[in-house]
Amino acid sequence: MATVAFIGLGIMGAPMAANLVAAGHEVIGVNRSRPAVDRLVERGGRGGDSLAVAVAAADVVVTMLPDAPDVSGVALGEAGLYAAARPGTLHLDCSTIAPEVSRRLAEAGAARGLDVLDAPVSGGESGAVDGTLSIMVGGPADAVARARPLLEAMGKTVVHVGPAGAGQTVKAANQLIVAGTIQLVAEALVFLTAHGVDREAACRVLAGGLAGSAILDRKAAGMLAHDFTPGFRVDLHHKDLGIVTAAAREAGVPVPLGAHVAQLMAAVRARGHGDLDHTALLLLVEELAGHSPGHSDS
Amino acid sequence: MATVAFIGLGIMGAPMAANLVAAGHEVIGVNRSRPAVDRLVERGGRGGDSLAVAVAAADVVVTMLPDAPDVSGVALGEAGLYAAARPGTLHLDCSTIAPEVSRRLAEAGAARGLDVLDAPVSGGESGAVDGTLSIMVGGPADAVARARPLLEAMGKTVVHVGPAGAGQTVKAANQLIVAGTIQLVAEALVFLTAHGVDREAACRVLAGGLAGSAILDRKAAGMLAHDFTPGFRVDLHHKDLGIVTAAAREAGVPVPLGAHVAQLMAAVRARGHGDLDHTALLLLVEELAGHSPGHSDS
Amino acid sequence: MATVAFIGLGIMGAPMAANLVAAGHEVIGVNRSRPAVDRLVERGGRGGDSLAVAVAAADVVVTMLPDAPDVSGVALGEAGLYAAARPGTLHLDCSTIAPEVSRRLAEAGAARGLDVLDAPVSGGESGAVDGTLSIMVGGPADAVARARPLLEAMGKTVVHVGPAGAGQTVKAANQLIVAGTIQLVAEALVFLTAHGVDREAACRVLAGGLAGSAILDRKAAGMLAHDFTPGFRVDLHHKDLGIVTAAAREAGVPVPLGAHVAQLMAAVRARGHGDLDHTALLLLVEELAGHSPGHSDS
Amino acid sequence: MATVAFIGLGIMGAPMAANLVAAGHEVIGVNRSRPAVDRLVERGGRGGDSLAVAVAAADVVVTMLPDAPDVSGVALGEAGLYAAARPGTLHLDCSTIAPEVSRRLAEAGAARGLDVLDAPVSGGESGAVDGTLSIMVGGPADAVARARPLLEAMGKTVVHVGPAGAGQTVKAANQLIVAGTIQLVAEALVFLTAHGVDREAACRVLAGGLAGSAILDRKAAGMLAHDFTPGFRVDLHHKDLGIVTAAAREAGVPVPLGAHVAQLMAAVRARGHGDLDHTALLLLVEELAGHSPGHSDS
Repeated sequence: MATVAFIGLGIMGAPMAANLVAAGHEVIGVNRSRPAVDRLVERGGRGGDSLAVAVAAADVVVTMLPDAPDVSGVALGEAGLYAAARPGTLHLDCSTIAPEVSRRLAEAGAARGLDVLDAPVSGGESGAVDGTLSIMVGGPADAVARARPLLEAMGKTVVHVGPAGAGQTVKAANQLIVAGTIQLVAEALVFLTAHGVDREAACRVLAGGLAGSAILDRKAAGMLAHDFTPGFRVDLHHKDLGIVTAAAREAGVPVPLGAHVAQLMAAVRARGHGDLDHTALLLLVEELAGHSPGHSDS
Repeated sequence: MATVAFIGLGIMGAPMAANLVAAGHEVIGVNRSRPAVDRLVERGGRGGDSLAVAVAAADVVVTMLPDAPDVSGVALGEAGLYAAARPGTLHLDCSTIAPEVSRRLAEAGAARGLDVLDAPVSGGESGAVDGTLSIMVGGPADAVARARPLLEAMGKTVVHVGPAGAGQTVKAANQLIVAGTIQLVAEALVFLTAHGVDREAACRVLAGGLAGSAILDRKAAGMLAHDFTPGFRVDLHHKDLGIVTAAAREAGVPVPLGAHVAQLMAAVRARGHGDLDHTALLLLVEELAGHSPGHSDS
Repeated sequence: MATVAFIGLGIMGAPMAANLVAAGHEVIGVNRSRPAVDRLVERGGRGGDSLAVAVAAADVVVTMLPDAPDVSGVALGEAGLYAAARPGTLHLDCSTIAPEVSRRLAEAGAARGLDVLDAPVSGGESGAVDGTLSIMVGGPADAVARARPLLEAMGKTVVHVGPAGAGQTVKAANQLIVAGTIQLVAEALVFLTAHGVDREAACRVLAGGLAGSAILDRKAAGMLAHDFTPGFRVDLHHKDLGIVTAAAREAGVPVPLGAHVAQLMAAVRARGHGDLDHTALLLLVEELAGHSPGHSDS
Repeated sequence: MATVAFIGLGIMGAPMAANLVAAGHEVIGVNRSRPAVDRLVERGGRGGDSLAVAVAAADVVVTMLPDAPDVSGVALGEAGLYAAARPGTLHLDCSTIAPEVSRRLAEAGAARGLDVLDAPVSGGESGAVDGTLSIMVGGPADAVARARPLLEAMGKTVVHVGPAGAGQTVKAANQLIVAGTIQLVAEALVFLTAHGVDREAACRVLAGGLAGSAILDRKAAGMLAHDFTPGFRVDLHHKDLGIVTAAAREAGVPVPLGAHVAQLMAAVRARGHGDLDHTALLLLVEELAGHSPGHSDS
């Protein structure tokens, strides 16, 4: 069993850390605000006095942070992770950031004798709680082998997809598909509403055929109920679509539907819905279809 | 057990008819070309001498035809289904056609004392063979109750979604989602190729998270192998996207991603790929990304 | 000089008829509501007692009507144009309708010994008033030669573009470009607003370079002032974009940006702005950008 | 009359510098390769021995370079423009780069006592030769007043649109509109071809109505002739669309058609047409419509 410093106990990080505790690891929680640490302690974890102390005590450091500047700040700062960690420490970054940032972190870590993996996750809060996340891992094979027991405590589908940054690349592709699928389901729902069809019945039959998807299975009920409690926030998905369109541009490949839905997500955010679940794309489609803002589907 | 005239023994119709035989029904096959009828006879069905004779002998008539003119021709012609059928006969139209055509057929059938249901299906050839289709049914509840044993012999998810035409409306929504999802997966694959990521590994992890879908489960392997044997042909999906965009226009609802992928499907067809599986959207995305036409991914 | 029955004295038709009067023709006005006829009489025209009487007295019949059913109704009805007109009469249809409807009218007219031309116009109300319309003419060359003096009384750029229906095809292309250009200008304006740039100065410099267009010249001021008095209504442009996307589909050519802006125009209409000028696409872009509905740019 | 160091004598820069010579200014040309300098000397300019020497001798320095790193390299390098220029020198950057880079340059220049203006241009090679460019100027009013005689020697429409960076913001909007308009015209042309319409006649009538634009006036003939000699290269317009979509993202405004055409331009580039004129968007639309690559429209 490993000693794990877990940095970032938010909607996703908290249950992931709890699953590491449940798997028998010693987990030291580090978080900007204290209550999240206290809740981890209640679940059997420990509280870290400071990032540097927690990291120095750890075999493995997991980071689960909102954006690239957060991860870079934690990793590269003067009193940061890479300065404080003992050589041989494994850094498992589960944040979703640009592939090139992950590659830079891997180089910086290697220069200090650390193993660094990018290991972003998909599956949402429920997947984090249930330990059924998909985890897409980039980095050297031996580090992946070393990380696997921890990863399998947090996820069900753990796949090594390539060298440093490859995990982020696959996560970017994941975010393109997820946003697009939400939008397609939203268009279908508004289309069905306009034609007076029973949408719950329709969702059941759609889910059973070639239109079936994790979005229909896990998100359609919330969409039908107009419940946009995150889950995964529009602001973060907007950030991720910026990563994927930029990475596509760099690689010289068009992603027409991806770029299209990125514009729609930007519109959802511009309309003030950045804190809602990403399924709030439905609100935008309803507005485009002329439904009044106060419209209720329930 | 019912006596069923089954009209249209193509890629989908043949295995659906065979499943009705397997469920114990007496099935009279009618098809433009004879070999398909012979194959049904080998499976335990009967051959129909003519459409009129087959229909006159039947309790239930199933039609599984490519497009609205085919169905209207069979149903409304002078020696056609509605002229030949005994009052009380149930017409189960499993074709994918415009909702308004289904509504007109339902009226014409009712005028002759027939029960008419629109019951388009989703799930592809494999779903038809395995009897695991999703079937979206529109029409009166009592007729649906009467049809249910037959429908459940052909499909796993059978849902009554509303009055006449509602099945087609849901099928239109289904086709919007399916085309869009194929396109999203195609963009993701080309994006991953451009970044040098192991695409098979990536597909496994994508399928396990929120990006997961029936398309990833059933179609990604063929896409990776560049095997575009239909399955469901581009020509037919192009036709269906014409139905969904027209029906959205009539209802006054925008379907931005749906209309976008309809243009891309039109381009696949214009480039001469109408006879390939609809996953040939991948070919278009590869061409947009500058891959040479002879490019092989295997 | 010709005797002209002019059917349809709306925003466009009234000044076009007045220009025919000014050119010395005898013009008999026919309109659903009387005041428009009275205004033409004040300008030197005559009022028609009935369509049939007016047509029977005319050498040339001009129709300027909202949509295909209006034109077909007037032309093909029992007491309609083609029944009442003397053989040899020229029917000049300036309405914007589907090319195939124009082709059918040309055939029906020819069967009765009439010359039929499709001659839709572009240039808006100001072009109609000033007699500076662009007119795109489809039909036989001799009929175009015969019509030219009348067409040149109404427009500045009169071009024979091909056989029956070709005028409508070019008009469809025109409407695709016009809608798209309005949308591009709208996006540019919202982009400039968000960056705090002086938009009037920007429009001046944009109009002078490669971004220059008739839309920037004639419509930007109204857009900046949020004055959406038609001009050309959203409802009609929405209808026209239905024609162009359907005609593209029939011809097997994708029109990706055209189909995209058709969805946006549909959304403007769905949001209740069908009676505003088509530049109300700006309202939609502002809403997508999160500007409040009551937002004023003046 | 001013002494002007002109840095960057490419397709656009060479005729712009020549127009400054013609207006009576002393122009010292600086360019990576010598022949362009020699051609300027033939026109009455002088050759610069080095950037530093040329700049030190100048009242005004004009830069006309491909991309932000070029401008930053020239301006901020150790032996660069800002190090070599005398206090009070005016730096007129006519390159098209991101607004934020222009703002940073303005700050860096101000810190050394220089006046810096961003003054990107529109109008293409012909506008540069004829001195009819549109020039969109950002920076302090007094510097703009000082620069005006030089700007008016190069352009016809010179507009001060706001503070530092505002010129670039307007240029970004310009590039969005230009790319979109080319694409709309390309779609119209392919649509007209598919319907067998005379495209030259059609272009004449389209140019005269509300669809009229500088693109139709100046570029349609080349498009009809399939002559894609630049003019303005796809590679550069692709770069510019990256600037506009990024700037829109930062400002939180969606630009749906802009983002769409950015994907299409990326596809033209990915297909190996980066060195062609940006009207090569037509090639892509033709390919989407199934025209063979060797297809000739002439």
